[in-house]
Amino acid sequence: MQRNIRLEIEYDGTNFSGWQIQPKRRTVQREIENRLEKLLREKINIIGAGRTDAGVHALAQVANFKTKSKLKIENILRGLNSLLPADIVIKNIKEVDEKFHARFCAKSRVYKYRLYSGKTALLRDFVWETGYHLNLDKMKKATRKILGKHDFSSFCVTKSSKENNICKVLKALWRKKGNELVFEIEADRFLHSMVRALVGTMVDVGRGYFSISDFQKILLSKDRKKAGLTAPAKGLYLVKVKY
Amino acid sequence: MQRNIRLEIEYDGTNFSGWQIQPKRRTVQREIENRLEKLLREKINIIGAGRTDAGVHALAQVANFKTKSKLKIENILRGLNSLLPADIVIKNIKEVDEKFHARFCAKSRVYKYRLYSGKTALLRDFVWETGYHLNLDKMKKATRKILGKHDFSSFCVTKSSKENNICKVLKALWRKKGNELVFEIEADRFLHSMVRALVGTMVDVGRGYFSISDFQKILLSKDRKKAGLTAPAKGLYLVKVKY
Repeated sequence: MQRNIRLEIEYDGTNFSGWQIQPKRRTVQREIENRLEKLLREKINIIGAGRTDAGVHALAQVANFKTKSKLKIENILRGLNSLLPADIVIKNIKEVDEKFHARFCAKSRVYKYRLYSGKTALLRDFVWETGYHLNLDKMKKATRKILGKHDFSSFCVTKSSKENNICKVLKALWRKKGNELVFEIEADRFLHSMVRALVGTMVDVGRGYFSISDFQKILLSKDRKKAGLTAPAKGLYLVKVKY
Repeated sequence: MQRNIRLEIEYDGTNFSGWQIQPKRRTVQREIENRLEKLLREKINIIGAGRTDAGVHALAQVANFKTKSKLKIENILRGLNSLLPADIVIKNIKEVDEKFHARFCAKSRVYKYRLYSGKTALLRDFVWETGYHLNLDKMKKATRKILGKHDFSSFCVTKSSKENNICKVLKALWRKKGNELVFEIEADRFLHSMVRALVGTMVDVGRGYFSISDFQKILLSKDRKKAGLTAPAKGLYLVKVKY
């Protein structure tokens, strides 16, 4: 009998070439698979809900894997956390129905992006330090334009292999928190580097380089070359995956 | 004419052997002095308000130095921040009265300590990860015992060179913040590793190893051997120095 195990994973993306296995690169998926194979003594293939890029962090990435092992679930958790490097922590583990698939069953994903005003030593790997004076009110107004269903081709960094670039944005907001401006977005799906392209372009709105109507034209143009810069990976967090 | 310059400094203590210059060690004081000497082309001696230990962080350490340089203050700030490594940031600079001495003029210092419940990848260098179930209420009660003037010899890690070990605690409190318990303490002076010894002993109260009356007896005993363990440096922050 195969068991299906669901993991919730926190990681510091700083020293990873992202989630997905690539030859000769240190990736989160590979680190976890290696440790699971050591622990369970069989070939393991884990499926992540979102393929985060190099430098992107996760508070609760979700993944699942199949195993024939009879090891108790709490012992898998303890063993895995003791084997894993310090920049990956399994926060939660449970046995789930065999049909559960971390990627295909996900209904929506939540990301956040942290902008820091000025320079910071303590948060330097965890925020984007901007020197711009940003008009938060304008950024909030631009944010309203992306709510709902839109073709986000303008905010997709690489040529998408998906049949369409339509995403449904369920929630998108900016809030001020001390020295930070934090963007939170929930959507049914995300294109490659979409959050970082949105944040980069909204920062261009906040610093006055683009107007709100420019922002809307960029969205409607479906042309990546029109949008602003891509915000650095280190400010981005996969916060939650909803099922 | 000599100028007296006051700095406010944020640093990530992870990769430093503390504030104070020591032979062959990477210290915050040395890094700043080296860069200032490069920038101002003269020998510089900076005085810090608090000598933080290896691994301890600072949100706003205060320091001052004398210089004959006529370089504009904003150019010193810009030059220094561009020369400094990423784990030190000068947050503020100003020219002050020649009598200002960062250490001797300080009226009080504020430290905070962050405890994290469980394991964390993202905050692993910035909190103490404890597996204990802690009774916050008991820790708050123990905290009240240290308010005011006391001899803190029980919470001084090394034999103090000071003529007395009396400190006046102006404020001390625990608060819950998500997965964290945060301790904040303000006092006119601190003995070596005093906050870490206090936190370690209060965690022993929280996990039920010491009672509140044990805690009071430890304080009154003036004997370091009676107190609990010293909490790790990485959870400690110098928050503010008041003048």
